Amino acid sequence: MAGLASGKGSLIFDPAGVVAEAVPKAVGKEREIVLGRNVHTTCLEVTEPDADDESTGDKEAAMASILARYRKTLVERTKHHLGYPYNLDFDYGALTQLQHFSINNLGDPFIESNYGVHSRQFEVGVLDWFARLWEIEKEEYWGYITNCGTEGNLHGILVGREVFPDGILYASKESHYSIFKAARMYRMECEKVETLVTGEIDCEDFRAKLLLNKDKPAIINVNIGTTVKGAVDDLDLVIKTLEDSGFPHDRFYIHCDGALFGLMMPFVKLAPKVTFKKPIGSVSVSGHKFVGCPMPCGVQLTRLQHINALSSNVEYLASRDATIMGSRNGHAPLFLWYTLNRKGYKGFQKEVQKCLRNAHYLKDRLRDAGISAMLNELSSTVVFERPRDEEFVRRWQLACERNMAHIVVMPSVTIEKLDDFLIELIPAREIWYKEANVEPPCLADDVGAENCSCALHK
Amino acid sequence: MAGLASGKGSLIFDPAGVVAEAVPKAVGKEREIVLGRNVHTTCLEVTEPDADDESTGDKEAAMASILARYRKTLVERTKHHLGYPYNLDFDYGALTQLQHFSINNLGDPFIESNYGVHSRQFEVGVLDWFARLWEIEKEEYWGYITNCGTEGNLHGILVGREVFPDGILYASKESHYSIFKAARMYRMECEKVETLVTGEIDCEDFRAKLLLNKDKPAIINVNIGTTVKGAVDDLDLVIKTLEDSGFPHDRFYIHCDGALFGLMMPFVKLAPKVTFKKPIGSVSVSGHKFVGCPMPCGVQLTRLQHINALSSNVEYLASRDATIMGSRNGHAPLFLWYTLNRKGYKGFQKEVQKCLRNAHYLKDRLRDAGISAMLNELSSTVVFERPRDEEFVRRWQLACERNMAHIVVMPSVTIEKLDDFLIELIPAREIWYKEANVEPPCLADDVGAENCSCALHK
Repeated sequence: MAGLASGKGSLIFDPAGVVAEAVPKAVGKEREIVLGRNVHTTCLEVTEPDADDESTGDKEAAMASILARYRKTLVERTKHHLGYPYNLDFDYGALTQLQHFSINNLGDPFIESNYGVHSRQFEVGVLDWFARLWEIEKEEYWGYITNCGTEGNLHGILVGREVFPDGILYASKESHYSIFKAARMYRMECEKVETLVTGEIDCEDFRAKLLLNKDKPAIINVNIGTTVKGAVDDLDLVIKTLEDSGFPHDRFYIHCDGALFGLMMPFVKLAPKVTFKKPIGSVSVSGHKFVGCPMPCGVQLTRLQHINALSSNVEYLASRDATIMGSRNGHAPLFLWYTLNRKGYKGFQKEVQKCLRNAHYLKDRLRDAGISAMLNELSSTVVFERPRDEEFVRRWQLACERNMAHIVVMPSVTIEKLDDFLIELIPAREIWYKEANVEPPCLADDVGAENCSCALHK
Repeated sequence: MAGLASGKGSLIFDPAGVVAEAVPKAVGKEREIVLGRNVHTTCLEVTEPDADDESTGDKEAAMASILARYRKTLVERTKHHLGYPYNLDFDYGALTQLQHFSINNLGDPFIESNYGVHSRQFEVGVLDWFARLWEIEKEEYWGYITNCGTEGNLHGILVGREVFPDGILYASKESHYSIFKAARMYRMECEKVETLVTGEIDCEDFRAKLLLNKDKPAIINVNIGTTVKGAVDDLDLVIKTLEDSGFPHDRFYIHCDGALFGLMMPFVKLAPKVTFKKPIGSVSVSGHKFVGCPMPCGVQLTRLQHINALSSNVEYLASRDATIMGSRNGHAPLFLWYTLNRKGYKGFQKEVQKCLRNAHYLKDRLRDAGISAMLNELSSTVVFERPRDEEFVRRWQLACERNMAHIVVMPSVTIEKLDDFLIELIPAREIWYKEANVEPPCLADDVGAENCSCALHK
């Protein structure tokens, strides 16, 4: 099927192959998946109030009942969540008092606009914290709090393109899809680079592609934790490959997509360091992932010297605007500021340790039960055999690709939660394969033979 | 000065002229403005907790004190807010119970992803409401709740470009700056069209520019309320101009930027109707403006047939993604759903009437006091002589351009608030001009001689 690689031989996923499809279809007859359900049928209609609603209170009551039911669903769904890298464990009660203000950080965080209901003082405090983490002087960085990891990537790649208008974008094929979306949006030439079985960028292939395009500058997306396998590209090797291929520092721009691990890596011993002391151009990280936040948000940091390339001055805002969005959620900085202050570096360090420990626990229990599983060093993402039952996948909200599922062990994923999951999975799995009378799939191509427990490799 | 047009002769603002400027400078010696203050100096630093903070509670107390002070500032700043089109009057107390969930509407609103903590059922309810408002069948539209008006514009222009890859973008020079940002991001050819004194697009100039570029399809941004003057481009005349210039319906794409008035216009009698029964491609509107919302958000609607042009299928999300952002704030749909349900069409109608009435009141009082002022028919944006004192401008959070300031009369802008403003403005203004021993500026070029109260035109 176009676009969706169903067999193990076809590892490359080509979005262009499905552009004309209205709704994605299931992967094949054997694995009939409801890839998405049209939500029109279950949507909560907006209805016109009756004339007497204010006096009867009927409408108010109906809405309160819908919200109470919805809240119950959220509690249940939050409890059974494992697949996405979101820390669902936070308490922002102290910030509830601010919810009835319309807080908007219009434009550049470092230049006040005339709109007074903003939270720039918190935003810049948060940015300064990340500047310390990634080792860049206050006077030398520029950044802002974004709406999500994707906005950080869109911004980083755009800065790269403005610095090198005819640069070629290089990204490993396991990069987040927003990188390839950026290439299409920005009309950039893009080279997809092969990956190792761990999910890391294959620097041999990278070198080969660089040598074919020596006449054009390089813009590189480096993954600090890929979406599916949590693989960390080797930044130092990427830089060395560039240098060895004849690209001096003024001929390349590196954006580090640290959506999840950008904030965890600094606390992992032996991890290759993400720092502006190396020749990188920008780093982005999500705020709703490891930190935890009611809504998506992120942090994007780049070098001030690059930012003039895409600034434009708009008098009516009394503010330059080098952000993508312009109007920006002023509550997100408050959430981040609050958590960073409460936990501090030490608090995060402790949580990173807990996550890594719990991830190892999960991987070991899976392997003990004869289930293929991989855990990259430096990562808390456990990749394992995709459960055969799609209802089970949905119940635990697992993100899947080909024969793989993964669980991203976040601070909200406790040993108890993992045990609940394993207690359900292991007996259910026996039944799935007994009933279908087939063997569990081989995952050697996806996670390496040493991590595969199929009949051939166990 | 490059980029900032200070005199009346230089009406065209050219962002490219200031790209290299690190910080915008003041407009000139006579009017020394602090266009922006570097917020590093006033930022609220994130500090590492002490080892004994948990037992002493010192950190908690210090943070509570900062937040309480901040809350007080917000109350004051909200009270003195007039310049931006945000309805600051809302009460979402009923939704506070949902703040501790990490709600994320990943990807396409109409296709569920495996992440269960979402609010798609509310989102689609809101979208359906807007589909009814703009007259498009449920089966024929596609849309999503965005992070702000800018995201709607970025999406609308991108859809246009995907439909017509070699199309030229036409937008009046008074369009929101995000339109020109989109052109640059997307590497599109862009023609800036002149405006009438009201701020509307000048269709004579539009026609002339179309005739010079007949070989390429046209992508047009139509303003349903410009940022500065609240001018509404005449959609019918734009379509007629296209047709008369030899552009059949399959050779143009119209995006309607209805950031503010997209939601007010349907309730104004005699206003040219924004409807998908006309040959338009997309409409966007902001949610934090007329509706009111704690954080920026918006609604983007387009025709389903266009959306396949930019879809891409990402298996790991089990969700197509034709949005710009991918990860999306799941709280915004709840806020919108709540207000739409409570107020309904009738409630909005009443509020639109109140806004228009109060806007006329303000314009009349200003003119009575001998102050140049303009109020476009169909608009609640009052453009008037820019106050000479920048401290005053900041206190009332007025958005300014050249010699103009404006007040956007939103539901939260009451007669009392306007009276408070006028009582401060009128005597202060007398002193400003007496002290400087100059005449108030002429605004004829900006708002028309008939609205100008300068020595020459009064």
